[in-house]
Amino acid sequence: MEKNITLTDRFWGRYRELVRTEMIPYQWKVLSDSIDINIEKERDDDYIPNEKSHAIENFKIAAGRSKGHHYGWMFQDSDVYKWLEAVAYSLADKYDEELKNLADSVVTLIGEAQEPDGYLSTFFTIEAPKRKFLQLGESHELYCMGHFLEAGAAYYNVTKSQAVFEISEKLVNCLFEYFGFEEGKHAIADGHEEIEIGLAKWYEATGNMKALTLAKFFLDVRGLDPLVYDKQRKDPAYHGDPSGMARLPKKYYQIHKPVNEQDTAEGHAVRMLYLATAMADVAAKTGDNARFEACKKIWRNIVDTKMFITGGVGSTVHGESFTFEYDLPNDTMYCETCASVALTFFARKMLENEIDSEYADIMETALYNTAIAGMALDGKHFFYVNPLEVNPVASRLDPGKSHVKAVRPSWLGCACCPPNLARLVTSVENYIYTKKEDRLYVNLFIGNTAEFNICGNPVSLEIKTGYPWSGDVTITVNNAGNSNASLGVRVPGWHEEVTYTMDNSEITPDTEKGYAVFEAKPGKTTIVMRLDMIPCKYTANPKVSADAGKVAIKRGPLVYCLEGVDNGENLAGIYLDDSTSFVCSYEKEVLGGVCTIECDGLRIKEETGLYKKYTPASFTKQHLKFIPYFAWANRGENEMRVWVNQK
Amino acid sequence: MEKNITLTDRFWGRYRELVRTEMIPYQWKVLSDSIDINIEKERDDDYIPNEKSHAIENFKIAAGRSKGHHYGWMFQDSDVYKWLEAVAYSLADKYDEELKNLADSVVTLIGEAQEPDGYLSTFFTIEAPKRKFLQLGESHELYCMGHFLEAGAAYYNVTKSQAVFEISEKLVNCLFEYFGFEEGKHAIADGHEEIEIGLAKWYEATGNMKALTLAKFFLDVRGLDPLVYDKQRKDPAYHGDPSGMARLPKKYYQIHKPVNEQDTAEGHAVRMLYLATAMADVAAKTGDNARFEACKKIWRNIVDTKMFITGGVGSTVHGESFTFEYDLPNDTMYCETCASVALTFFARKMLENEIDSEYADIMETALYNTAIAGMALDGKHFFYVNPLEVNPVASRLDPGKSHVKAVRPSWLGCACCPPNLARLVTSVENYIYTKKEDRLYVNLFIGNTAEFNICGNPVSLEIKTGYPWSGDVTITVNNAGNSNASLGVRVPGWHEEVTYTMDNSEITPDTEKGYAVFEAKPGKTTIVMRLDMIPCKYTANPKVSADAGKVAIKRGPLVYCLEGVDNGENLAGIYLDDSTSFVCSYEKEVLGGVCTIECDGLRIKEETGLYKKYTPASFTKQHLKFIPYFAWANRGENEMRVWVNQK
Repeated sequence: MEKNITLTDRFWGRYRELVRTEMIPYQWKVLSDSIDINIEKERDDDYIPNEKSHAIENFKIAAGRSKGHHYGWMFQDSDVYKWLEAVAYSLADKYDEELKNLADSVVTLIGEAQEPDGYLSTFFTIEAPKRKFLQLGESHELYCMGHFLEAGAAYYNVTKSQAVFEISEKLVNCLFEYFGFEEGKHAIADGHEEIEIGLAKWYEATGNMKALTLAKFFLDVRGLDPLVYDKQRKDPAYHGDPSGMARLPKKYYQIHKPVNEQDTAEGHAVRMLYLATAMADVAAKTGDNARFEACKKIWRNIVDTKMFITGGVGSTVHGESFTFEYDLPNDTMYCETCASVALTFFARKMLENEIDSEYADIMETALYNTAIAGMALDGKHFFYVNPLEVNPVASRLDPGKSHVKAVRPSWLGCACCPPNLARLVTSVENYIYTKKEDRLYVNLFIGNTAEFNICGNPVSLEIKTGYPWSGDVTITVNNAGNSNASLGVRVPGWHEEVTYTMDNSEITPDTEKGYAVFEAKPGKTTIVMRLDMIPCKYTANPKVSADAGKVAIKRGPLVYCLEGVDNGENLAGIYLDDSTSFVCSYEKEVLGGVCTIECDGLRIKEETGLYKKYTPASFTKQHLKFIPYFAWANRGENEMRVWVNQK
Repeated sequence: MEKNITLTDRFWGRYRELVRTEMIPYQWKVLSDSIDINIEKERDDDYIPNEKSHAIENFKIAAGRSKGHHYGWMFQDSDVYKWLEAVAYSLADKYDEELKNLADSVVTLIGEAQEPDGYLSTFFTIEAPKRKFLQLGESHELYCMGHFLEAGAAYYNVTKSQAVFEISEKLVNCLFEYFGFEEGKHAIADGHEEIEIGLAKWYEATGNMKALTLAKFFLDVRGLDPLVYDKQRKDPAYHGDPSGMARLPKKYYQIHKPVNEQDTAEGHAVRMLYLATAMADVAAKTGDNARFEACKKIWRNIVDTKMFITGGVGSTVHGESFTFEYDLPNDTMYCETCASVALTFFARKMLENEIDSEYADIMETALYNTAIAGMALDGKHFFYVNPLEVNPVASRLDPGKSHVKAVRPSWLGCACCPPNLARLVTSVENYIYTKKEDRLYVNLFIGNTAEFNICGNPVSLEIKTGYPWSGDVTITVNNAGNSNASLGVRVPGWHEEVTYTMDNSEITPDTEKGYAVFEAKPGKTTIVMRLDMIPCKYTANPKVSADAGKVAIKRGPLVYCLEGVDNGENLAGIYLDDSTSFVCSYEKEVLGGVCTIECDGLRIKEETGLYKKYTPASFTKQHLKFIPYFAWANRGENEMRVWVNQK
């Protein structure tokens, strides 16, 4: 088991342990249909399969071990691959022979389900072998194969499994034979981006140049012909489109123009962010500045106009999509967990191209708020959609909010999010550092020990912190001696005050691109950063009509919210005013141990009747309690709201 | 041509003239496919037919005059009937030989399309003659027949047409043979209420007791068996449900429980209000107090919790439905024109049961705001959906707002609203008065001359007013001498100050149930009411989260709004404060002559970036101009908003 970073963090350690002890075994039971659970549809839509997962059974049928039909989404396979990827990271963190054996057996099963030429998709192998690669707008074939390659790379990195290596190499060869600009090959990409990320990861793990060539090809071909899927759909043998996907606009698939010309985030949010992640990844790996410039435009469009304060993205359930600038409705948005996981990926890949603390700020926002809100504190209930405002009555009685759940279901008909979060949580240490030539950048304040080789010299680090509850971060560096090496420590964009000591002496470091820079000394150096963690009110740009006259509370990286259980019903009647002062306390008994924020607020007086002539509103005082957004919906069904009226 | 009330009103006269000279001829061209127009779908939905109307051609095919298939909705016939009803009222108002001949020819055509047993539905006659009355959940058969009976009653009242009498009588007999609780008859109602209203009107016009019995039956049978449509759908010959209506909940059809037990407004708003109208109508006609008590509960539920300030109802496009209490979203609501037309009907029928000025207040609100907003000032463009807040960019780019149009289309795929409004506008004088024993109540301030017989004595009245622009109303009563007669003049719920003179002497009349009461004197009496018409800010109940921190402006019965053309883009950035004072001026060049309201307001300063730490907002002064809501969207595509931020 190879690993150069070991997580020691209390906050993430708890999540990691939950994933290891609860989520991974639980997901296995779901994937193998060995648990009787209520699989909830993510919204009112007859098309959504929700009787069972059947994912492992699909592989057994494709492998010839079982008889029957494929069940579930065309992309059901990907649930298994994301589980396998999480298992790989988890094994690296804490070896578990039984789990390794189970994972090996799954790899064997996948190998048996793979066709002799390397093709891998249980849906098409079982149901439509003559339609392989012929309806890529909807098929999710390459999407699933991309997830296999991500899992394959992770599992190979950790276990050096020869079986997973062989499946992956056969798969890459299969794609290399079929896809490309060359005559006789096919110039088309998948409707759902992901293969590009998988191929880049396989290249990173093994140096397989075919994989990198293919990753670049799938980016280059996308959007060259916006009618590419329509043409496939005209084939009389077209397998049909029960989900109605074919009616969606070109932007849904990001095929409206070549990807390097796409300067705004459009369409399905997860697809868009997987595309952006792959673009940034391939740009970094190939030194392609034109592609990176395209990434920067997409980044600015999201961060300046299309991102919720929680790091959520996707403003509408219709196509699970981006809509338009400043359209950020708090109660009908989508904010899929997967989309914030993907935003974390994108930010990390942007840092590999260019150091700028804004990338890390957004990465942290997405990670500490919407991404981890996707999982309940018990590790066994999951959100697909992460609203900033919920009224359970509305979720039940307004069909336009049927996707906005007030409690996390135990599993979802489209189960992309839980395993996506699991693989992120089990690999979160990979997001802490970015290495650039002779400087190591600390992006995230997460406890860990790490070993790096900087310009030929081994450097070991230890980060200790109570973050995100405490703002004190102690970084101990043991530098074997390269005088050119330096450390960049991110100065969060949200900070008010920060102080530093180096070996107990106060210092004022230079900052570059939002990172405090410490030149390396030979031997051991201890740097202590003390960040203020004062709760602050935030406002949105006045163009965000949903947030007009409202404020949100943040403390450090965490967005806070009001819940009905603490503050009573009708949170729309609660106001803060300019005299508000916040008291923050760590409550170890609350929600598994969180800092809560309390203050005196106001509640507008109840009235009868629907409309009346204006008189200045009357208020009564009300003590308010805010909890971290990620921890909401863990105490039964109740109202929640992030943006609170400001008087 | 019989008529006891003649409209002389300037405000409604203009609408009446528009309907007579523009809308009725225009609708005829649409119904007969003799005009090349762009028929817009009311939302993104593949099922909506939108190539042409084909309504008259359907009748020709059913009558055997043409060959071909039925085209359009199953309820396409009703467009013709509503047109015929508007024509009847228009002829009573202003006789037009050519129009009368055209209408007579349409009646002849309908008669030819009617089957020998009296059955009347072009869809089933042409396409599915064996499925008559066998899929009433979706078929709209009785809905269409109800509209025929409403048209028939109106046309018969005005023209004494023997042809229309015979068709109507045959139709009533057909229904009487088929439907009823008696053995051998069928105990089922139509999925869309309307037949009940039509039957009651036919009874009112002719005294046909079978019609009243059937009206009562269709109310009594509704909701007795909530599974009644599901049972019909199980028939293997079931004709299919391309619109997906069968998946909608029982409440959509108001069949979840017996109607007298329904104490909240649920489901499809137009259906609900047609039901409530019929309930109140039959209650008044049969003296059924239990039914009236049920109506009162539904009324209170709507008026206290489910009505927009514009008199719009229906909070969601999903099922065009009511949702839950205080759920009144300004930018995603439905607020169908038909629903406010129906609310006007309901209020009028409530007044027939019980005098209370609240019914008239709401009737006036629906009539002067949402109902007439359904038609452009040119009489040739129509809204189906009447939002209280529109951003044209959102309508284009947020699929969840595809139903919210920023300009009125020239016709709609589902063309229920324009002819519904036409028949209301051409009969608006029927809403002015309610006669109760020896007292005549004036509900609406609309110029007219009228003749009534009160307790055996003829009384003539004349109302002169510049309402809704002026608050002065002059009522001249010529009483032939019954000393028991009296006049009740509504005191609007919104008034601040009102003064009265009787024959030039100031008086302070008693008020009963919100009406100022004037005892009759023999001979001529002139009563002058002077209502204040000061623009006022209104607030919504704090439980209406969509309106928190916002105010709406009303002057008299009219709700006002801001439009982008007067006030610039981003209306979400505009605020009023407590120092606001309004200046009202009648501008005869603006929007066909309206009172506009101007004031000094504030505009929040523009900012860059999406989120920042709170500082009290900065504002610049901005002069603001409000226009009446009904007149919005007549100056090109732009933003609009009723509820404005209050600082």
